Amino acid sequence: MDRLDLIKDLSVTNNAKMVMLVLDGLGGLSLKAGEKTELETANTPNLDLLAESAVLGMTDPIMAGITAGSGPAHLALFGYDPIKYAIGRGALGAAGIGFDMQKDDLAARINFATADNDGLITDRRAGRITTDESSPLCELLSEIKIDNIKIFVKPVKEHRAVVIFRGHCLSDKLSDSDPQETGVESKEVAALDECAKTTAVLMNEFIHKAQNILVDKHPANTILLRGFAKKPGLPQMKDVCKLNSAAIAGYPMYKGLARFVGMEILPTGISISEEFETLKTNFNRFDFFFIHIKATDSSGEDGDFNRKVKVIEEVDKNLGLITDLKPDVLVVTGDHSTPAFLKSHSWHPVPFLLHSKYCRPDDVKHFEETSCSRGGLGRFPALDIMPLMMANSLKLTKYGA
Amino acid sequence: MDRLDLIKDLSVTNNAKMVMLVLDGLGGLSLKAGEKTELETANTPNLDLLAESAVLGMTDPIMAGITAGSGPAHLALFGYDPIKYAIGRGALGAAGIGFDMQKDDLAARINFATADNDGLITDRRAGRITTDESSPLCELLSEIKIDNIKIFVKPVKEHRAVVIFRGHCLSDKLSDSDPQETGVESKEVAALDECAKTTAVLMNEFIHKAQNILVDKHPANTILLRGFAKKPGLPQMKDVCKLNSAAIAGYPMYKGLARFVGMEILPTGISISEEFETLKTNFNRFDFFFIHIKATDSSGEDGDFNRKVKVIEEVDKNLGLITDLKPDVLVVTGDHSTPAFLKSHSWHPVPFLLHSKYCRPDDVKHFEETSCSRGGLGRFPALDIMPLMMANSLKLTKYGA
Repeated sequence: MDRLDLIKDLSVTNNAKMVMLVLDGLGGLSLKAGEKTELETANTPNLDLLAESAVLGMTDPIMAGITAGSGPAHLALFGYDPIKYAIGRGALGAAGIGFDMQKDDLAARINFATADNDGLITDRRAGRITTDESSPLCELLSEIKIDNIKIFVKPVKEHRAVVIFRGHCLSDKLSDSDPQETGVESKEVAALDECAKTTAVLMNEFIHKAQNILVDKHPANTILLRGFAKKPGLPQMKDVCKLNSAAIAGYPMYKGLARFVGMEILPTGISISEEFETLKTNFNRFDFFFIHIKATDSSGEDGDFNRKVKVIEEVDKNLGLITDLKPDVLVVTGDHSTPAFLKSHSWHPVPFLLHSKYCRPDDVKHFEETSCSRGGLGRFPALDIMPLMMANSLKLTKYGA
Repeated sequence: MDRLDLIKDLSVTNNAKMVMLVLDGLGGLSLKAGEKTELETANTPNLDLLAESAVLGMTDPIMAGITAGSGPAHLALFGYDPIKYAIGRGALGAAGIGFDMQKDDLAARINFATADNDGLITDRRAGRITTDESSPLCELLSEIKIDNIKIFVKPVKEHRAVVIFRGHCLSDKLSDSDPQETGVESKEVAALDECAKTTAVLMNEFIHKAQNILVDKHPANTILLRGFAKKPGLPQMKDVCKLNSAAIAGYPMYKGLARFVGMEILPTGISISEEFETLKTNFNRFDFFFIHIKATDSSGEDGDFNRKVKVIEEVDKNLGLITDLKPDVLVVTGDHSTPAFLKSHSWHPVPFLLHSKYCRPDDVKHFEETSCSRGGLGRFPALDIMPLMMANSLKLTKYGA
């Protein structure tokens, strides 16, 4: 039996309200041996007060040693095995720009690239043209007509874009056109199974027409497609957990991920206090809230240790906006670590805090990496977070007699 | 390779003796934030002394957040994956009343119920008739004759009973007759595969004859059957672990569960000291002993915090009866948590202690939830207990060269 089947069998509805507060990239590292991490440095009296009556732990987003991207990291937070339920790169790209994919849509990532007169790829990133330069090119490509397919080409950043094909019976069992090297031609898109043959022909037609349009747009005189993907058919949170769930997030990617599992996306201002106010406004309407704070991750990616400390302190300063609502279960954690020292996502376990009437508090009184690693829950897979939240809200019945 | 296959490949026999002392529902919660759990409250000098030279930890009976019933919880303790090896409700019911199922027996749960003149179910529990009332009805139903099948109908409690059919080629691939709602007729038992068709006919014949017998026994004028199950075909402990194992338990359910994995059931008085004396008397005859203490769970289920504390203290007071025998490996743990605060089984991890000459003691010196969560074994699945016990008794050889 799959673990989602188990949760589905055991879950019941009641009035308990749950809040999952995700500080993206929360876990950190010290800049030098013997110094403190971002979270250890931050002055967080409210999180520490909460920790006193909470149970703490450390989570592995995917498994030991694996650095998680945003897609799999959030799937794990939402209770979906991130190895089993992969979201195709095209679909993740569409989510990332806030494109609301329909059931039959097919998405792919686009790189604007440079080809020489013989059609050999000389630069897979078209000299990293700016988004301002790639945006009008996307508009040109959006006007390509193939068959009865509606085509959306949207800029992402610099040379990167995403294309969504809306038609009937499109398949994502397709190989990339991106050869992943220079000095060679781009590849023909090939069908990976019998049913994908028609779609492969259409994709090659699209690429051909795009090349004709871009012929005089050097350095962006061709495109490379990869990561063909349809909308992931994820089990929906309302079916598995019987939850009426909502997402409060400022960035398109996280709204898209939440939408994939069936959360309602709440309109919100994107500052920390505005997101928390959105929770307050909607608190009576849902029984599960996912709140996403992006700035911990962006400051970590920028290698800005002090800014990450300040973001954490701002979350702490505003925490009362959440705790005053007295949610039955409150979790504070991250989706993965993003240490400023590494300027990137990392594999390190993520601090975790769960507060509820039934949480069996441990004797750990600070919310930071070292204390959390000694918490009552020990180190555990992020995949266990949803079952723990469900249990603590008494929404899971007994397994077996 | 299944983990039982691995254990089977590696296990060897020697003279080492192992004792698994299970305090049912051991894990607890404080009644108020900042107070102590039952186990933290109990005065347990002998368990704490043992903890000083033991390795501690916390176990998850099934997985994080999942509250375990007795069946799956004990399967995990005995080393059987409780998701893979489910015991059907009928078989668990038979175990619960101490009925020794044979290989070909088919068991089901019975509810005595009330039907109106049109055959519509008006009460699925027959007004919760007393066990004194249902017992003679069970005797009447035991006299039903069908084909060449021997029928045993045994009271469980109030309106609940269990029926065991002893015949040839009976299948348990059957749907329930219990409609799980009132205002409708009971359902025909249906075959879930081709081979179960004959059995389905026989079951419906049994129900029909039962209804004729009960026609004037209002409110118990009909029966509802559910959870058809044959004896679970569990790998036997003597084959997997090469152990000569025995169970010391006062309650039928736990004797039944132990019998399913091939333990010998030792006759015993049911007080704690009597159970421990039974261990002493039989210590030379077996190399693995499962001792089950029920009162920690019953007091927890009753919400009686102080009684649970006293039961734990009584176990502690009598612990010398076990330790004086100097078992090579002694484990003290629970099958799940039953906090008096919740008056029910719960999902919380369970305190675990393993004492052996080779256990690598940690620096944790108290046997209770908070200390165990900082123990040398951390938090781990209960499924790992048997391999750990086997290893600590040097009964597992090396895997691979």
